[in-house]
Amino acid sequence: MVQPHPRFLETLRVTVGLSEEEIQDLLGMWVTLSVKKKEHFFRAGDTCKATAYVNNGCIRRYIINDQGKESIVNFATEDWWIGDLESFLFQKPTIYYAQALEDTELLLLPFREFHIAQERFPKYKEFHVDKVQKSYFATLKRMSLSKTGSPEEKYLQLCKEQPSLFQRIPQHYIASYLGIEPESLSRLRRRLAGKP
Amino acid sequence: MVQPHPRFLETLRVTVGLSEEEIQDLLGMWVTLSVKKKEHFFRAGDTCKATAYVNNGCIRRYIINDQGKESIVNFATEDWWIGDLESFLFQKPTIYYAQALEDTELLLLPFREFHIAQERFPKYKEFHVDKVQKSYFATLKRMSLSKTGSPEEKYLQLCKEQPSLFQRIPQHYIASYLGIEPESLSRLRRRLAGKP
Repeated sequence: MVQPHPRFLETLRVTVGLSEEEIQDLLGMWVTLSVKKKEHFFRAGDTCKATAYVNNGCIRRYIINDQGKESIVNFATEDWWIGDLESFLFQKPTIYYAQALEDTELLLLPFREFHIAQERFPKYKEFHVDKVQKSYFATLKRMSLSKTGSPEEKYLQLCKEQPSLFQRIPQHYIASYLGIEPESLSRLRRRLAGKP
Repeated sequence: MVQPHPRFLETLRVTVGLSEEEIQDLLGMWVTLSVKKKEHFFRAGDTCKATAYVNNGCIRRYIINDQGKESIVNFATEDWWIGDLESFLFQKPTIYYAQALEDTELLLLPFREFHIAQERFPKYKEFHVDKVQKSYFATLKRMSLSKTGSPEEKYLQLCKEQPSLFQRIPQHYIASYLGIEPESLSRLRRRLAGKP
């Protein structure tokens, strides 16, 4: 049986509203996957075979454009989800890469089990629909911010949402996420710290 | 009774799968709203009171950042939807502006009727869930493209998705959407046309 993060259990109990028995039944469908630091969970061209919950560790999701330039789309740390839902739901190749930046433990609900769970637990289905909706709103806001916001605004937003990242991962990944050069990030941080 | 665009009727018949009687029942809940060219359908701070289908015309959705700079998030032409779903569903203020670029006719399903329709027609609810999901995937892709793509790639993407726009609206709106200056857009177009 998987050993889920306390916040995942709380989500299943409080947010989804499942009974202890239902939780045990649902958790029986999940499997644990360890991804070593620097290993990839998936690469562009792969088809996502499971929805994945980050039990511990950190994954970066990124894309590579036609010119070979990498750009980080988001970071997933404990209690986040990582994957490409479109690739998963329609079983088609993803355009993203997902690489562990720390030794990472994922909890996976495979495609077949995902559909059984949706059927067996209507509350879990509702939860999933709600999660897609929230991700949509968050993505829309991030896109709007990326259109009008300065790198400073994006930096402050990331500090607010995932403060632990800055102690955990190399700064050049943060710079890639913000779409700026590492030197610009250093200058930005010095400026915000009030240092010359 | 509203006079919906043929493609909307087709969506209700084929995609949603409603019977003619159900369609009449559903359409009875909608109202028509005319928005004159240059008028706003909503502004930042407003709460979206209805989901809106563009029956004809063109609306631009944009945001204004702290420095007062406008940036266009998307254009909605015939057979698109326009609004801020988060503002609508949670009845909270939007951060967006929606302005008509042509005389525009919208079909509105107000908040109360939206929930009645979702209850009465489970297929319409499924359709809505599916639409949110698709919008999420499209937004994610656009965000990824905006991170790695050049203005040229974004321009070609827009040409593919909404080719009619270029004949319909002033070029500076296209430039704002692409995040470039109008002069750069002119140069880009000349280059793509193979002109000096």
